[in-house]
Amino acid sequence: MTSPDLDSVLVRLDQEFDGAVGRLSDLLKIPSVSTDPAYQAEVRRAAEWLIEDLESIGFEASIRETAGQPLIIAHHPGPGSADVPHVLYYGHFDVQPPNPLDEWQSAPFEPTIVEAEHGKRLVARGAVDDKGQTMTFIEAFRAWAAVHGTLPIRLTLLLEGEEECGSPSLEPFLAANRAELTADVCVASDTTSWDIKTPAITYMLRGLLYVEITLHGPSHDLHSGLYGGAVLNPLNALTRVLAALHDAEGRVHIPGFYDDVYEPGKAELDAWAALGFDEGAFLGGIGLETPTGEAGRSALERLWSRPTCDLNGIYCGYTGEGTKTVIATHATAKLSCRLVPDQDPAKILAGLEAFLETHRPPDGRWEIKDFTLAPGVRVATDSPYLQAATAGLADVYDEKPVLIGCGGSVPAIAMMQSVLGFDSLLVGFGLEDDRVHAPNEKFEIACFRNGMRAHAAILARLARIRAG
Amino acid sequence: MTSPDLDSVLVRLDQEFDGAVGRLSDLLKIPSVSTDPAYQAEVRRAAEWLIEDLESIGFEASIRETAGQPLIIAHHPGPGSADVPHVLYYGHFDVQPPNPLDEWQSAPFEPTIVEAEHGKRLVARGAVDDKGQTMTFIEAFRAWAAVHGTLPIRLTLLLEGEEECGSPSLEPFLAANRAELTADVCVASDTTSWDIKTPAITYMLRGLLYVEITLHGPSHDLHSGLYGGAVLNPLNALTRVLAALHDAEGRVHIPGFYDDVYEPGKAELDAWAALGFDEGAFLGGIGLETPTGEAGRSALERLWSRPTCDLNGIYCGYTGEGTKTVIATHATAKLSCRLVPDQDPAKILAGLEAFLETHRPPDGRWEIKDFTLAPGVRVATDSPYLQAATAGLADVYDEKPVLIGCGGSVPAIAMMQSVLGFDSLLVGFGLEDDRVHAPNEKFEIACFRNGMRAHAAILARLARIRAG
Repeated sequence: MTSPDLDSVLVRLDQEFDGAVGRLSDLLKIPSVSTDPAYQAEVRRAAEWLIEDLESIGFEASIRETAGQPLIIAHHPGPGSADVPHVLYYGHFDVQPPNPLDEWQSAPFEPTIVEAEHGKRLVARGAVDDKGQTMTFIEAFRAWAAVHGTLPIRLTLLLEGEEECGSPSLEPFLAANRAELTADVCVASDTTSWDIKTPAITYMLRGLLYVEITLHGPSHDLHSGLYGGAVLNPLNALTRVLAALHDAEGRVHIPGFYDDVYEPGKAELDAWAALGFDEGAFLGGIGLETPTGEAGRSALERLWSRPTCDLNGIYCGYTGEGTKTVIATHATAKLSCRLVPDQDPAKILAGLEAFLETHRPPDGRWEIKDFTLAPGVRVATDSPYLQAATAGLADVYDEKPVLIGCGGSVPAIAMMQSVLGFDSLLVGFGLEDDRVHAPNEKFEIACFRNGMRAHAAILARLARIRAG
Repeated sequence: MTSPDLDSVLVRLDQEFDGAVGRLSDLLKIPSVSTDPAYQAEVRRAAEWLIEDLESIGFEASIRETAGQPLIIAHHPGPGSADVPHVLYYGHFDVQPPNPLDEWQSAPFEPTIVEAEHGKRLVARGAVDDKGQTMTFIEAFRAWAAVHGTLPIRLTLLLEGEEECGSPSLEPFLAANRAELTADVCVASDTTSWDIKTPAITYMLRGLLYVEITLHGPSHDLHSGLYGGAVLNPLNALTRVLAALHDAEGRVHIPGFYDDVYEPGKAELDAWAALGFDEGAFLGGIGLETPTGEAGRSALERLWSRPTCDLNGIYCGYTGEGTKTVIATHATAKLSCRLVPDQDPAKILAGLEAFLETHRPPDGRWEIKDFTLAPGVRVATDSPYLQAATAGLADVYDEKPVLIGCGGSVPAIAMMQSVLGFDSLLVGFGLEDDRVHAPNEKFEIACFRNGMRAHAAILARLARIRAG
């Protein structure tokens, strides 16, 4: 059930739709890869682009420096009445590295429109994660302000520049700017809908522990003939250690790993089962057919409520063309655990360190770098804000909104919960097959449009809540 | 016991010694890396350099094309009498890749003289393996020809340009040129002496099976949050497969791996024990202290007569700075087995393929490239040629020569044995700590001098054998 103030905004969004696609394309052309120092200037360029755009809508926006990449804070006073809610919108303008480059069908930073099963889609790094989703609410604000001259609630925007490397600077920033970031609730768009027709609010997110581990052995690279068979080969040893991380049942063998894991109750599991998740289609979409993972758990449990341990990268020795008969002096793996409520990332890291020490080969030496320590998140499902967001989604979609979990991590959400003290409404418009973090990342144009319309509707619904 | 014809050559070698070091340095400046197509022109440049040098000594020398890198054949008629032996000298002018470059203390292709415990040493890629050792016999020929106007035996030189990538073109070349390569015996210098004072002839060499294996899984790289825990992670799976290659006793679990392994007899093992190998010093030289390898075997057995399975390289997923939360579509390892007499490389490869198939995860697909298949070698220890070489070594060293094994592989030696039908005398002048295949490869100047002198003495001893 829409309202007249919303209807006029929805009309405006459709009238201005090509402009919105053009603006997103401009932002996508900026290769704002946050994890790689080579792209540092581009992250800032993306921030400057957004500042200018937000100012044109009526926000007071500024770049804020951190120890890492800059972030953006923007404020809009809303209609001037004190009793409307104050909502913090969260998004991020940094992106994952585009490699492997040779698997892209178009250049990752040259946004390209392609026709596919759902109509047009926009292909580029960051198309959906998270530039495209961030622009869904910015476009809603633009249209609302154009039609009504202001926005219907008080808003603060927090747009991050290092979400893709684990938000290392965010927690101290939040702590240092707690007063300025005061709000009633956060709205974030960095997740997916259930499917292209069914909107969803994500109420559970996994956390993340990301480490790089190196096993050091001989003092220098060795000829595998002159030494092989009689000395520690760090790569042979590393594969044995990594293999021991899981048992035959797919359970992770880090000490204490499952001690604090939140177990969903029967009602929760029943609700998940009622979603009718199609595991065959899920696997088929990535060229696989065999269910894999922790024994005795459904696919949605494995993805939403069970912690994992995945290797994300490895390198050692000779990796060029042809052969080199070398025993390398050290071997390095990048390893991450998706964590779930109520695991403590610091405790899991300590368990991993203990595991590595237990499995350390004689004469081996570990070097461990921890990059990310973010807990899992659960959001209260009975708040007026979540009800408003659900109603807003219902206003503009034919299908009823559902509550879902998400296997991914948005460390910022946990930090806002713990430092700022409020929950986040994770209203996402991506699809499962968007190739997030992979070559040929895309955002369906239909999803982009749904996202803008939904954010306009949620604005209208939030405006009806009287601030306590 | 030297002879007057040798003594004058030894004098000449000392007079011309600085020139010999200069010539070797010139050859070392050419980055003739055979495994990497980027260096192809440099391999040919090294061949051309040698052709010119051999012609200046009186050889008829030419570059011969193969399907891979070119090689050199050179002939010298000797003194003109038919009853002197005809000896084929083998060496190679290609080198291993220099990486990792940042671990070199001087540029790998800018030969540098450094003072160390044994006096001067020459540091460069190829210093000892095998440009330096190849020049030991070429310098002996040069000095002998300068003093006596000719050489005392008939000679053919076979200098290879792709030994460091497993000699893929050599076997067909030998088969196609059998008549031209007829000889009584081969002399090769691509091994080590026992220590800097004790000369050695290597009578056992390990063979080599070198493969690159890739495990393919999902059709594209995946976000580790959105998929992790419920899909095949090829890198997780690959580490499990690789870990299963060895058992807790250090034995290799490839089916049939030990079926045909030659077991040295008691007399042979006693002779090895009498060498007084210092395992503590061997390990200490590479920063280790714990004996490692197959249970119940001595270090020399592990190095000389026991087959191995070592990982030489691995790469998968994100390997750059920082983090990327990706489940990669495939994972690749470079793996080699050092083989021993009488293992059949083809049978071991078939066993490895069976092993991989047995351990293939559901939905996984293997891609296997085999680069090298070379059997181990044992040389007859009772021939007049081996006795002549031993006597020649005794002529110029204070310590008595010893017979040793070597864990490395020279596929050419096995090929000459099987295709040309004669054994090789492996007279080497390297040291165990020469950092062969590793950064900061070096050749002791004292060893270079010993090598030239020994080859002159062996020439004199071989000349006394009357050809049958």
